Amino acid sequence: MAILDAAVQGSSSFLSTSTIIALSVFFGLLCACIVIGHLLEENRWANESTTAVLLGLCSGVVVLLVSKGQSSQILVFSEDLFFLYLLPPIIFNAGFQVKKKQFFKNFSTILLFGVFGTIISFCLISLGTSIISVQNMVLNQDETPFLYSVVFGEGVVNDATSIVLFNAVQSLDFSNIDALTALQLLWTFLYLFFTSTALGIATGLLSAFVIKTLYFGRHSTDREVAIMMLMAYLSYMLAELLNLSGILTIFFCGIVMSHYTWHNVTESSRVTTKHSFATISFIAETFIFLYVGMDALDIDKWKSSKASAGTSVAVSSTLFGLVLAGRAAFVFPIANIANCFKKRDSSKIEFRKQFIIWWAGLMRGAVTIALSYNQFSKSGTSTTPEYSLMITSTIIVVLFSTLVFGSITKHLIEAVMLPHAKPAISDATDNQSLEDLRLLFLENGDEGDDGDNQPAPKGSSLRLLIRYPTSTAHYFWRKFDDKYMRPVFGGRGFVPFVPGSPTGAADDNS
Amino acid sequence: MAILDAAVQGSSSFLSTSTIIALSVFFGLLCACIVIGHLLEENRWANESTTAVLLGLCSGVVVLLVSKGQSSQILVFSEDLFFLYLLPPIIFNAGFQVKKKQFFKNFSTILLFGVFGTIISFCLISLGTSIISVQNMVLNQDETPFLYSVVFGEGVVNDATSIVLFNAVQSLDFSNIDALTALQLLWTFLYLFFTSTALGIATGLLSAFVIKTLYFGRHSTDREVAIMMLMAYLSYMLAELLNLSGILTIFFCGIVMSHYTWHNVTESSRVTTKHSFATISFIAETFIFLYVGMDALDIDKWKSSKASAGTSVAVSSTLFGLVLAGRAAFVFPIANIANCFKKRDSSKIEFRKQFIIWWAGLMRGAVTIALSYNQFSKSGTSTTPEYSLMITSTIIVVLFSTLVFGSITKHLIEAVMLPHAKPAISDATDNQSLEDLRLLFLENGDEGDDGDNQPAPKGSSLRLLIRYPTSTAHYFWRKFDDKYMRPVFGGRGFVPFVPGSPTGAADDNS
Repeated sequence: MAILDAAVQGSSSFLSTSTIIALSVFFGLLCACIVIGHLLEENRWANESTTAVLLGLCSGVVVLLVSKGQSSQILVFSEDLFFLYLLPPIIFNAGFQVKKKQFFKNFSTILLFGVFGTIISFCLISLGTSIISVQNMVLNQDETPFLYSVVFGEGVVNDATSIVLFNAVQSLDFSNIDALTALQLLWTFLYLFFTSTALGIATGLLSAFVIKTLYFGRHSTDREVAIMMLMAYLSYMLAELLNLSGILTIFFCGIVMSHYTWHNVTESSRVTTKHSFATISFIAETFIFLYVGMDALDIDKWKSSKASAGTSVAVSSTLFGLVLAGRAAFVFPIANIANCFKKRDSSKIEFRKQFIIWWAGLMRGAVTIALSYNQFSKSGTSTTPEYSLMITSTIIVVLFSTLVFGSITKHLIEAVMLPHAKPAISDATDNQSLEDLRLLFLENGDEGDDGDNQPAPKGSSLRLLIRYPTSTAHYFWRKFDDKYMRPVFGGRGFVPFVPGSPTGAADDNS
Repeated sequence: MAILDAAVQGSSSFLSTSTIIALSVFFGLLCACIVIGHLLEENRWANESTTAVLLGLCSGVVVLLVSKGQSSQILVFSEDLFFLYLLPPIIFNAGFQVKKKQFFKNFSTILLFGVFGTIISFCLISLGTSIISVQNMVLNQDETPFLYSVVFGEGVVNDATSIVLFNAVQSLDFSNIDALTALQLLWTFLYLFFTSTALGIATGLLSAFVIKTLYFGRHSTDREVAIMMLMAYLSYMLAELLNLSGILTIFFCGIVMSHYTWHNVTESSRVTTKHSFATISFIAETFIFLYVGMDALDIDKWKSSKASAGTSVAVSSTLFGLVLAGRAAFVFPIANIANCFKKRDSSKIEFRKQFIIWWAGLMRGAVTIALSYNQFSKSGTSTTPEYSLMITSTIIVVLFSTLVFGSITKHLIEAVMLPHAKPAISDATDNQSLEDLRLLFLENGDEGDDGDNQPAPKGSSLRLLIRYPTSTAHYFWRKFDDKYMRPVFGGRGFVPFVPGSPTGAADDNS
């Protein structure tokens, strides 16, 4: 089958032998990753991602030896596999389990990082690659800015925003970049952002309404779980169908589902959805890292790049330096700009936190690989050496950052943050794709400021909104939510309370 | 992507437009099926299968109109889709949720129906089709006995056995059938049966041992659920890799996992696995019925069959008659033979139960369609009219039996069984693929004979084994299980007791 196209085609009765071999190997390796990851849980130098990448590398070597140097690949990468089956559950689960209150409290900062960070990074790296292409005569800047904008601009704030930007950038004509184009870019981005978000929220609310009104649990809890899964997936598909960002849509669909829908289902469905979404996401993430490791040894790509080892290393380290610089160029300035708008010292982003945000964003890999392959495969059969060098350099950068950075990040965070250690820090290293979002939540210093205990604003609402914008907006949102939304769509307080919200007990009321 | 090959190929950015449209339509229809199925839950004339088939028919009409009569298909059927993604979860869940005690108590009867029933049915239908092919000059008997053996022999006892037989029959040379061939067939069947079962049990025990020894729940409940899912799927893949029956393997893997593994995981993992397996199976089943309905209007198949409406109806009704007769030819004799070996009247299969077993087996459809497509697609590009007529006749038979039989079965069972109504009867109509197995459990008349309360055999074990073979075997199995198996692999009693076993509280101790 094409989705997991096996490299060697064999004869078959029901299924092709190569497909079965490929799937057996991959499922066996996934089991091994999980067992090893469990055994290394207390180890400071390893985590599930590094285990998966290393196991993938090892099996790549084995396949290379077995096939006598012909191929290291068992599965041919397909962007369908990634964008239809692996990415949606990861992003949906991220939305479903995100700490909603802290996410929305820091929403302005996140947007700031997302939009301006990506733009700054994009400009710097476009500049840098144009210099490389002049010096090395290797990279064709006219053909690759889209890829670069993603591969490295991706390392910005979160996967969702960069995919939106990737779509936006793709739909623009880059032959003449001027102020108008920049405005056009901004408009495209804003349009995509708001329509995608609205679609996700609408689908989530529809699922909550349907489940609340029809009360599926009366007959079968399976129907509740099935409706939640199917509607989440449907929101992603609809967004892709309307040329919106499926990633953003399913992310917000996850948020709305955990806020409303999740409270309308029976208790066993709550436990089931909470854990099964997390499990599916976990399997998908491990699968991607395993694949990246195995794919790194694909000699076809290395051969067709025609570059010497020296050139590869030189290009890779230059790109790596650009990533470091590109990230530094926006993380520190934007963090300081954001600090200017914060009234209280406790909510400012300290330098050590800025450092962690800068560092943690370097570790991402899976989405980068997928997007660069997508760009690569779009060039069709014309496998130019430039494109192959791009891919191999990307693989080097991603492998290096996953393995080296991944294993020292725990230590670094402890060394930098230990005097101010909070539980959220150790969480942050687990899920790299939301690293930055979570790190931002660290700045939420004043624990006493809980939504429920917050003193009601007595004075002018407008004045409060200006002085404490996020807290006040949160207060009014809660009033609106309790008065209009929850009676219609359900949610906590409108169904019997159950402990163990998917986002944790403390954050459930935002 | 090929797994869900869209009929119309469009240009794409990330994903092909036609794939997105196809998936959106299918996921939307699945949601509609679930909602409508829920609303019709109290309706006696409809169930989820008939809803799905009818919805599929309607959308087939819509697609036919939109495409101006070009095609009614959105997705091209792929046996990979069916055998890799839809069938394994259905069968695994059947094993996971089966009432183990009653299943094994009636194991001999089930095997009797499975093996001899299939053989009788196969012979009768081979004979019947050879008569058709002489009279109509349409069907080529030399090329189609394999298909017939499955399409109608399938309607026997359970899907697993018939797929084993399908594999067995395929590997034999049918040019000269004699006693040696029959022995060869029996040997192949027994070999496949025992090796597949052993592989499934081994995988299940391995998962139980790994989870019990390493205690995954200590760090993450997600790892437990992931390991259970992956190892179940791995068992299926390994069986296919070794040319065994993946269906039988994953069925027994499910049984072992619910008996041992399920008790070794944390409580939230228990709830999660129980419900998520059921949900995935439910979605897969609905998907198949939806597809069958939509596919029935595929005009390419109807065109290439070149048969007049009269011929189609004639062939279909002849085949249907053969199915009825073939089933009757083994259900009633075998049930009476089985009755001869039963000592107590209460455990005999009454005539009314025999009638239900005969009737219920006629309703199956999904596996039949899949196997006939598989046979059809194996003939490659040579789409002969004979094959097309085969397919269209199969579709007519399956549609008719699903819609007509499906909607009157509830009434029939009530009319026949009402004086002796038991809760299990209404259950039986829900999951057609295990219909027969479950109906057999009805004969387990003596409720007082619970494994725990059973009086210990005082006399000669051998005499007891002869007089009450199943009860005695069960007693010794429980002794062996408690002494050797559970201490190693876990299971109820060796971990804290939790109510709500996947198979229901009463059947958990077998």
